[in-house]
Amino acid sequence: MTLDLLSHIHSPEDLRQLKAKQLEQLAKELREFIIDVVSTKEGHLGASLGVVELTIALHYCFETPKDLLVWDVGHQAYGHKILTGRRDRFETNRKLNGISGFPKREESIYDTFGTGHSSTSISAALGMAISSQLKGDFQKQHIAVIGDASIASGMAFEGLNHAGVTKANLLIVLNDNAIGIDPSVGALKTYLTKAKIGKKPSQDNIIEALNFHYEGPIDGHDLPELLKAFETLKTKSGPKLLHVITKKGKGLKQAEEDQVKYHAPGKFDKLTGEVLPKNNQDLAPKFQDVFGLTLLELAQQDEAIVGITPAMPTGSSLKYMMDAFPDRAFDVGIAEQHAVTLAAGMATQGHKVFCAIYSTFLQRAYDQVIHDVALQNLPVVFCIDRAGLVGNDGATHHGVFDLAFLRCIPNLIIAAPADAIELRQLLYTATQNLQQPMAIRYPRGRGQIKDWKTPFEKLDIGKGRCLQEGSDVAVLSLGSISRHVSESIRSVGDRFSIAHYDLRYLKPLDENLLESVFDKFQQIITIEDGTVKGGFGDAVLEFAQTQNYTGHIHKLGIPDRFIEHGDTDELYALAGISSEKIKEIILCILNQS
Amino acid sequence: MTLDLLSHIHSPEDLRQLKAKQLEQLAKELREFIIDVVSTKEGHLGASLGVVELTIALHYCFETPKDLLVWDVGHQAYGHKILTGRRDRFETNRKLNGISGFPKREESIYDTFGTGHSSTSISAALGMAISSQLKGDFQKQHIAVIGDASIASGMAFEGLNHAGVTKANLLIVLNDNAIGIDPSVGALKTYLTKAKIGKKPSQDNIIEALNFHYEGPIDGHDLPELLKAFETLKTKSGPKLLHVITKKGKGLKQAEEDQVKYHAPGKFDKLTGEVLPKNNQDLAPKFQDVFGLTLLELAQQDEAIVGITPAMPTGSSLKYMMDAFPDRAFDVGIAEQHAVTLAAGMATQGHKVFCAIYSTFLQRAYDQVIHDVALQNLPVVFCIDRAGLVGNDGATHHGVFDLAFLRCIPNLIIAAPADAIELRQLLYTATQNLQQPMAIRYPRGRGQIKDWKTPFEKLDIGKGRCLQEGSDVAVLSLGSISRHVSESIRSVGDRFSIAHYDLRYLKPLDENLLESVFDKFQQIITIEDGTVKGGFGDAVLEFAQTQNYTGHIHKLGIPDRFIEHGDTDELYALAGISSEKIKEIILCILNQS
Repeated sequence: MTLDLLSHIHSPEDLRQLKAKQLEQLAKELREFIIDVVSTKEGHLGASLGVVELTIALHYCFETPKDLLVWDVGHQAYGHKILTGRRDRFETNRKLNGISGFPKREESIYDTFGTGHSSTSISAALGMAISSQLKGDFQKQHIAVIGDASIASGMAFEGLNHAGVTKANLLIVLNDNAIGIDPSVGALKTYLTKAKIGKKPSQDNIIEALNFHYEGPIDGHDLPELLKAFETLKTKSGPKLLHVITKKGKGLKQAEEDQVKYHAPGKFDKLTGEVLPKNNQDLAPKFQDVFGLTLLELAQQDEAIVGITPAMPTGSSLKYMMDAFPDRAFDVGIAEQHAVTLAAGMATQGHKVFCAIYSTFLQRAYDQVIHDVALQNLPVVFCIDRAGLVGNDGATHHGVFDLAFLRCIPNLIIAAPADAIELRQLLYTATQNLQQPMAIRYPRGRGQIKDWKTPFEKLDIGKGRCLQEGSDVAVLSLGSISRHVSESIRSVGDRFSIAHYDLRYLKPLDENLLESVFDKFQQIITIEDGTVKGGFGDAVLEFAQTQNYTGHIHKLGIPDRFIEHGDTDELYALAGISSEKIKEIILCILNQS
Repeated sequence: MTLDLLSHIHSPEDLRQLKAKQLEQLAKELREFIIDVVSTKEGHLGASLGVVELTIALHYCFETPKDLLVWDVGHQAYGHKILTGRRDRFETNRKLNGISGFPKREESIYDTFGTGHSSTSISAALGMAISSQLKGDFQKQHIAVIGDASIASGMAFEGLNHAGVTKANLLIVLNDNAIGIDPSVGALKTYLTKAKIGKKPSQDNIIEALNFHYEGPIDGHDLPELLKAFETLKTKSGPKLLHVITKKGKGLKQAEEDQVKYHAPGKFDKLTGEVLPKNNQDLAPKFQDVFGLTLLELAQQDEAIVGITPAMPTGSSLKYMMDAFPDRAFDVGIAEQHAVTLAAGMATQGHKVFCAIYSTFLQRAYDQVIHDVALQNLPVVFCIDRAGLVGNDGATHHGVFDLAFLRCIPNLIIAAPADAIELRQLLYTATQNLQQPMAIRYPRGRGQIKDWKTPFEKLDIGKGRCLQEGSDVAVLSLGSISRHVSESIRSVGDRFSIAHYDLRYLKPLDENLLESVFDKFQQIITIEDGTVKGGFGDAVLEFAQTQNYTGHIHKLGIPDRFIEHGDTDELYALAGISSEKIKEIILCILNQS
């Protein structure tokens, strides 16, 4: 691969020295470079390939970093990163101490706003634009690039609705490729789809109704057309939207054809485009598949069961149920708030609603969990995937706050399975005459158990279990971090006698089990893969205080700081709750006591 | 007042026995009845007056409770309550053990979905409609009544966007009166305003673009027109929206003319409509005014200061700044998510952003606080009003979760002033080179201090203070609940020596102060007006554990259940943290130890 042009671009300043007719060649090189690196280093692929021309055109036409460019979600910003001085570090993308897979303010002056969760760009860019106005700067441009899946989220609408009554110098670039991670859904998508290139929707369209100047749709892979549009729009004041049609995965045939798979395909052959086969046959299944397949089984037996996911059918594996029962399983798009209250509405009519949502995205529906579900004590089941540290997606995506923010909610049962079988049985338990809401949280990735399809068995609500008897110290764990505890205990060997309890429920706590632990042990360790502030450890401390427990309780969990990106194992070590770290702490405590 | 018709209406069944031409008389009586009761018992007025005809028409045309009716927000549902069997109990509205000021499932089969927070009705009713469809019931009607301020919220848009691609039998009644609590804002409102009666917006309007059948606008006080519209719409399947124009406060001249004041006017003369004068001259100011007036003062001195509120300019008293600096203070409508990320965007450009939001509504922007503000460590100041128990609005509005859900967020300073002067100084402190986000939470209602306009003084971050020395027991309080502690200590008198510390900050905790308390006291009481799970008490417990503190810590706060409506004093007694209850606990502890 020769990068005749790209190798000389160290900043957008360099890019702007090129002649317009050279940009097509640059686009070719940039696309090749992305494919080259991502094929071996892994990462998000399709989204960045789709905006190669758009990225070049934006930095070519606008005076970045003086003009402020905000990328919504941000997994499409690889081209942006490469053109803004991070080409040589791009190989470190998403690795520990490497560059982030998303825009990040600490990383570059060109990353004006950190992203990761969707639909924030309009609000952020509008805030910047209003700031400029207040400072009397009417030349500065403020650009939000947002996809059609993200603009359909409520938060984006709130931004549009406000922007439309301001005179802020805001340009929204609607990157319309009809797909997020899974295909876009919803009425707005249907509406936008009517707008084909060269065929503008009706004069008074939905964007113009919100008082935006609307341009487009134009072909987002046609550089001259992009340049022309941006040059024109630069001269218009007030809020404006350019509707750009792109193809996700553009330039790699397979990525264009299977856009879901090539969103983040893992390693692939950069010449043929084929994803390299993984040897998964001997591995235990992913937790998400244990959820998805178990829910499918349960749904086959009980027609009261329905499923809802906000835009994560593939990632949550609700897809299995959606394929088998398209009428009973719903992808509602990037609409977490709606998803939860929709679930509440269905629960009032006697449906058993399983709402599958990532831990980090449940933050978007926190009020609805409290106000619409828990307050009314409706038996909605929240299936909270990607709990704990998620790895390379980093700080924006770790699911570490859920235990703390859910524990304070009355009426809510909170469970965290230690393994795939517990997850399966908790899901089954949630179908057995549940009278209140329930949250079941489990991690990203695979478990350890291959034969997980055991017969269904109802688990007592609020009952934990003893995994290993012992006498020197008791380790209390919640959820799949249990595995690290088991490994650390094995590694300590028979030097000490270590008890291990899987509490299984954060709420209600197994107080009987805890009482017996308090009676027997003067040293207790609690471990969770959530923030130490407010979660499982605090629940144990709280109960210990009511019991006048006089021994020592050592809380382990995610420390009170944001954890960056890296491999999950590396991050658990950083957070001090890898098997090795837990072992060290156990030995330290036992050698001192 | 003679209620010839109303006195015979014990359920909508009775209503439906009336002849259509009698309904106008019924409307008159219902309106009079509402004015009569609310003039002496207080409550929300304008919203319910505005929907008298609409309420009658809905119950007349639809087969409630078989057909399902969801009221958005719910403060307009007084007529609904009176017509559905609660006329005789209406005097107990919002009182302890009386009926709720909002629809509530426990209260009546006609209250299909509890509300309080806005913009949930579309999602909830859509969930019900999909449930009916799955059960094969295609006759049942599902109606969401939503105001123009509420439909502009992102959550409502998410519901519309989903509904538009379903065949659900959903009718949305858009109650367009151009006002929420304060006048509606935003581009959608401007758009709707173009739709005057008899002048339908362009064929392909914004609602039709989302694939709804659109009817209207019609006069919402014209009963025959309402009946005709509902009878027609009943026969149409799929999602549909009826645009109804009403006047908030309809039928009471002053309420029509000053809609903000008469939203919830307190006691008034039912004949003249005049609000009864309150003798407020000798009272200390409301916390919200201390905030609003102090921010105005600060803004006069520092042009970097800007203010944002999501739809609460009057309630938060940001109004003072909005009036003085209309360019620098923003009401963004019911758009909490947008408000917070807008604030983050402005903070990136060096503005000092004060985001005024009620505790209970901050739940709507939880993800934005974490993902857009705290993760990027942007110095946004959250001014969290209505923290603690708010009184008659009840369970939907209490601000009791904030301490718990904020404490787990890294980078965030969390302060709670004990009184008006502390609030003033904390606001000032937040303008002095703040390098990270800060939350300042304070209660609804008035403080105790009349001379609160003391010279500005910067408070050390993370430093508490001793309010009273003592030796028998230490009471640690956070925030304005401090007053209850002081009262209880006074009431105990000199029987015991009770120390009282105002921690002032939940985060960072004043560890030096706590260490000295641990050294000196074997009995410690923590008090907060937030949930005991995960908040201030847990923070103290957590630190005590690291210090190997061996005394007793008694946590007081809001117990782990939802607290209903009533006068604030009654509710604090129920929650066990009134002055009297605190005194009892102090005595109980000291008599035992």
